[in-house]
Amino acid sequence: MRVGMLTSGGDCQALNATMRGVGKALFNLFDDLEIYGFESGYHGLIYSEYHKMERSDFSGILNIGGTILGTSRTPFKTINEPDENGLDKVEAMKHTYRQLRLDCLVVLGGNGSLKTANLLSQSGLNVVACPKTIDNDLWGTDMTFGFHSAVNIATEAIDCIHTTAASHKRVFIVEIMGHKVGLMTLYAGLAGGADIILIPEIPYHIDAVCNKILERYKYGSKFSIIAVAEGAISYEDSLKSKKDYKKKLAERKYPSVSYELADEVFKRTGIEVRVTVPGHTQRGGAPVPYDRVLATRFGIEAAQLIKKQDFGNMVALVKNDIVKVPLKDIAGKLKYVNPDSQIVKEAKLLGISFGD
Amino acid sequence: MRVGMLTSGGDCQALNATMRGVGKALFNLFDDLEIYGFESGYHGLIYSEYHKMERSDFSGILNIGGTILGTSRTPFKTINEPDENGLDKVEAMKHTYRQLRLDCLVVLGGNGSLKTANLLSQSGLNVVACPKTIDNDLWGTDMTFGFHSAVNIATEAIDCIHTTAASHKRVFIVEIMGHKVGLMTLYAGLAGGADIILIPEIPYHIDAVCNKILERYKYGSKFSIIAVAEGAISYEDSLKSKKDYKKKLAERKYPSVSYELADEVFKRTGIEVRVTVPGHTQRGGAPVPYDRVLATRFGIEAAQLIKKQDFGNMVALVKNDIVKVPLKDIAGKLKYVNPDSQIVKEAKLLGISFGD
Amino acid sequence: MRVGMLTSGGDCQALNATMRGVGKALFNLFDDLEIYGFESGYHGLIYSEYHKMERSDFSGILNIGGTILGTSRTPFKTINEPDENGLDKVEAMKHTYRQLRLDCLVVLGGNGSLKTANLLSQSGLNVVACPKTIDNDLWGTDMTFGFHSAVNIATEAIDCIHTTAASHKRVFIVEIMGHKVGLMTLYAGLAGGADIILIPEIPYHIDAVCNKILERYKYGSKFSIIAVAEGAISYEDSLKSKKDYKKKLAERKYPSVSYELADEVFKRTGIEVRVTVPGHTQRGGAPVPYDRVLATRFGIEAAQLIKKQDFGNMVALVKNDIVKVPLKDIAGKLKYVNPDSQIVKEAKLLGISFGD
Amino acid sequence: MRVGMLTSGGDCQALNATMRGVGKALFNLFDDLEIYGFESGYHGLIYSEYHKMERSDFSGILNIGGTILGTSRTPFKTINEPDENGLDKVEAMKHTYRQLRLDCLVVLGGNGSLKTANLLSQSGLNVVACPKTIDNDLWGTDMTFGFHSAVNIATEAIDCIHTTAASHKRVFIVEIMGHKVGLMTLYAGLAGGADIILIPEIPYHIDAVCNKILERYKYGSKFSIIAVAEGAISYEDSLKSKKDYKKKLAERKYPSVSYELADEVFKRTGIEVRVTVPGHTQRGGAPVPYDRVLATRFGIEAAQLIKKQDFGNMVALVKNDIVKVPLKDIAGKLKYVNPDSQIVKEAKLLGISFGD
Repeated sequence: MRVGMLTSGGDCQALNATMRGVGKALFNLFDDLEIYGFESGYHGLIYSEYHKMERSDFSGILNIGGTILGTSRTPFKTINEPDENGLDKVEAMKHTYRQLRLDCLVVLGGNGSLKTANLLSQSGLNVVACPKTIDNDLWGTDMTFGFHSAVNIATEAIDCIHTTAASHKRVFIVEIMGHKVGLMTLYAGLAGGADIILIPEIPYHIDAVCNKILERYKYGSKFSIIAVAEGAISYEDSLKSKKDYKKKLAERKYPSVSYELADEVFKRTGIEVRVTVPGHTQRGGAPVPYDRVLATRFGIEAAQLIKKQDFGNMVALVKNDIVKVPLKDIAGKLKYVNPDSQIVKEAKLLGISFGD
Repeated sequence: MRVGMLTSGGDCQALNATMRGVGKALFNLFDDLEIYGFESGYHGLIYSEYHKMERSDFSGILNIGGTILGTSRTPFKTINEPDENGLDKVEAMKHTYRQLRLDCLVVLGGNGSLKTANLLSQSGLNVVACPKTIDNDLWGTDMTFGFHSAVNIATEAIDCIHTTAASHKRVFIVEIMGHKVGLMTLYAGLAGGADIILIPEIPYHIDAVCNKILERYKYGSKFSIIAVAEGAISYEDSLKSKKDYKKKLAERKYPSVSYELADEVFKRTGIEVRVTVPGHTQRGGAPVPYDRVLATRFGIEAAQLIKKQDFGNMVALVKNDIVKVPLKDIAGKLKYVNPDSQIVKEAKLLGISFGD
Repeated sequence: MRVGMLTSGGDCQALNATMRGVGKALFNLFDDLEIYGFESGYHGLIYSEYHKMERSDFSGILNIGGTILGTSRTPFKTINEPDENGLDKVEAMKHTYRQLRLDCLVVLGGNGSLKTANLLSQSGLNVVACPKTIDNDLWGTDMTFGFHSAVNIATEAIDCIHTTAASHKRVFIVEIMGHKVGLMTLYAGLAGGADIILIPEIPYHIDAVCNKILERYKYGSKFSIIAVAEGAISYEDSLKSKKDYKKKLAERKYPSVSYELADEVFKRTGIEVRVTVPGHTQRGGAPVPYDRVLATRFGIEAAQLIKKQDFGNMVALVKNDIVKVPLKDIAGKLKYVNPDSQIVKEAKLLGISFGD
Repeated sequence: MRVGMLTSGGDCQALNATMRGVGKALFNLFDDLEIYGFESGYHGLIYSEYHKMERSDFSGILNIGGTILGTSRTPFKTINEPDENGLDKVEAMKHTYRQLRLDCLVVLGGNGSLKTANLLSQSGLNVVACPKTIDNDLWGTDMTFGFHSAVNIATEAIDCIHTTAASHKRVFIVEIMGHKVGLMTLYAGLAGGADIILIPEIPYHIDAVCNKILERYKYGSKFSIIAVAEGAISYEDSLKSKKDYKKKLAERKYPSVSYELADEVFKRTGIEVRVTVPGHTQRGGAPVPYDRVLATRFGIEAAQLIKKQDFGNMVALVKNDIVKVPLKDIAGKLKYVNPDSQIVKEAKLLGISFGD
């Protein structure tokens, strides 16, 4: 049994924990096993950069952040285009797979990486995927590993801001990752006790945001905390065409949404605003226990699918069970916050404003 | 609308977060609201010790450990017996409830406390309960608040032990809470990378434990880490009658199972053993974000049940949804680790020994 | 004995721990004691906003961030100017002091606040000060409380970045507080293992910074981490007049030095750069044990100075001892990083570049 | 230049950080350098078990707990006795040193290990030592690395206990490491807000301890927290001869002082007592930033001493400066808590009881 493995896309916590689960279970399931780790994601598969992984490589990495294989972003959009030297990337990957006489390939990846995994699966390779992303935006699984670890870091940032905020009359903005999806911001905002939560799925009205701040101030709260998703968008901008919006982003003087929001809030309320951008810290550090257990279980399930020769699937958490879902059914689909969902309604009942 | 509230039993993280959810949502749902907090659990309800809780009492407590109402253990077994002054406790509770003209009572409690809540509900009081315990051993809900926070602390203990263990030839035992249920130990053991996990549901053979240690040593691992539940039991002891086992516990010279296990392992392997007892630290500290969100949602759901006058229920998490379950269906039932469950099988596939 | 107390300036960790030390020790030293807490720093002293503090107010606040008294910035520059209603601030403070028949005033403050404390002391009030600031930039004390707590948060940010950095080819910039002084950045940079440390005391050459990055890349390190002080300055800018530099800052399109540096590095090296701005999280959260002990000791020493009627001093840590230093000798003086100091030389010996 | 290195005795945080400091600085100071790492402390030196350490071995270990070289306890008492095969250990170490043609040996160790280092130095080897121990009990340096990291963990345990303690009427005992010295317990007790601190240097009267608990209870504090050093001793026991005391310890039924104390307190006060034993967690986990900086600086200073060929010294922190002290002046001397010191008096002024 010869298994290839790679980690692809933006890195996150528990990548190593997942590989440990795959590796330890495979070594217990197969007597005659060789595992090859591709370096820097699909890059290693394309350019045949890999090394053999021993049983001992999977020890002591359960709580180590990052990935021992490295990762890179190989955009799906251009996967069918030749590289700068004219190399056909998909053919190159298939070539590496065959030259190494692999029986299957394990891919740890998020949205874009799973599209590539599905493409490889459709073109005949045996693929098993594990759902990796701090954004928890993958269709087909209730949870991805990385999410709760990243939420933990974002929440700690809001916690720290809370103690200092209570000492001053100020508005604090904490910018949280998540690309186009607001799940991280929603959870960290709820967990951190944010007063206002702005997410891409619910375009915000700057007036509603400022009214909430002024209302809080009127009723004795000197400070307000805004948890804003990096992909949050104002109602006006949400009406723009995709092209026009991209143009606006490219031209604006602010490095991110937070600074623009800070300026707008200050202009309209006259209250000082401070911005915190935890940035890539949200992808780093040791995974929280929740993610370690989830990742380990995903890894073991991937190993069991290999044992059963059941390929073309992503392992997933569905209603408490670790299951498989066909890659072709979920690749390329995103999971968004539903503005009418139970959790959003609950948040509003708590008094949180979404700026809508 | 007049609502009573109490926290009962062993304390845990996110009690305050839950009360905040209840309180904030109730104040947003009712114009004419009075909340009375009973002090030290059912004790306050029995002896009419309470204070009015204002809207501001629910601010700033989201991430504070412990409970602002205090708690105590009032054993269910003796709930129908008069107290030392001849007071009928159940009647006293009903009396307080009526004298305060309460419309309902919110109980945050675990196994024993929910039995009492059900008893009060059966005898005509309007009761809504929230599932509180680090043990996650309550029937009817997939998760209780406190569990992931406690697992986090237990896992951090194993993490710390891991770094130091790797420097010495030793066996390390970490004793984890959970009463008669092994869920906390199973999760923390998986998350911390324990080599051996001993839980009440799977009685252990001391020889199997020692063999695992010696086998690891033989294959180059100088150390072994055992995560042992405070309620773990040897196979021999598990055959004893309940009475005989209690007698043994009462007579043994060890303060807890860890120290007995340590002596047995040392006697049989000659390898030094070190014991860590995180003890009540597992109930303390700030709740992790997971628990804050879960507790907040439970609290809001409790408030909504009150709004709907839908009493006699416990709020619960069932397959991702916050729902209600009738108290009469779940009170007194415990949720155990199933030795044949998917997660135990996975752990074994990883190479973890349960001593069976 | 009647004691006034206030916390002034930017808040930091262990303000409450210090007040607890003062309060608990005073209540043990005096039978007949009244403590008055002024709200929002000197603001409360000017406008007579205060409340009496009881013994119980000092319980349970040892590890709580922020300040139970609130704080504000009352700039020293304008302290002698009347407020918008024509009120003479200094006279107002003296008036409040006398009307409350205070025997002394305890000020917890940083650089600007201590200048005001000294002014009040010079004009006849009995003042004892405690050195508060995350920047550790106060003359006369080896250490201020808040510093190690803030360094801890900044270091955790670098730690998180480290795990994720190692997975990608990138430059990461972490912006660290400290105003005009580089101590926080130096310590957090050393503790976090930064490759480049940029501080105000050592103006940087952008070419030296880029060369270090490229050199690291050449020798196999895919990533570089820059710890940059919020007050860091390029060599060119350091040659500008203060006025010209302020003008530049006011006009630049970047919200802070990090974003400008990021653009410059990307332009010159072509390597992707990511910016993290922990911002005010560095002032928040629970104080680390070091700060709790230091703050407690400072507070007790302040109480002892009051007992001895020894006024006009700041408590300080000098070579392991808690001592007093006259306010008039230290107010207004800043402590900088000496570019020729032992610790900077050591950092260079480790291979760290300061961009000089 | 050929340098040997070893880590000896009980492990602690920042051992790797120290070696990184030594290694990185040495590689920058010498063109022609070979470093040999001995495995498992003096064991590796005696039995010639070592490996060459490359520049890259010192990367990425700054915040990793444990030691990449392993450690062991080789008791100084028996260092002059032959091993079980008749091998003269001191001669064996000298033999290994010479056979490897070492120019010097770097020892990271605590009390016992430094005695051996001094013995080797006296017998002609070139030795440089770094002061390692969580106990901070080494003579000649104000601080050892590991201390603040261990205090941090012990303090977190007390913090967690604090939140849960406040919910119940109980006494909580937290047992803290430190061997015969109470520094860790004193610092963690102060930082955690313990009510009672029991250390070896101040033998306790059980009556004084119980009186403090009852007095607190009388004045409204339902709980008390005792920080007890593992080496704490009652006044009665302190009067015993060393032999008699050891006999008592060997015969007592309790695994450690905490459990005995718990029984005594319960017997005399009737209040429930709960015991927490963080144990070896105090040696584990990542070092705090303070220790990383201190360890790094110690390591660099050790490298500089090697460059200057200045041997027979331990690096030390003395009044803020990193200096050297002759091994012969400090080996074998312990630093205790002085019961009359400023910090103990301060603690008493705060209301803390030492049971004296």
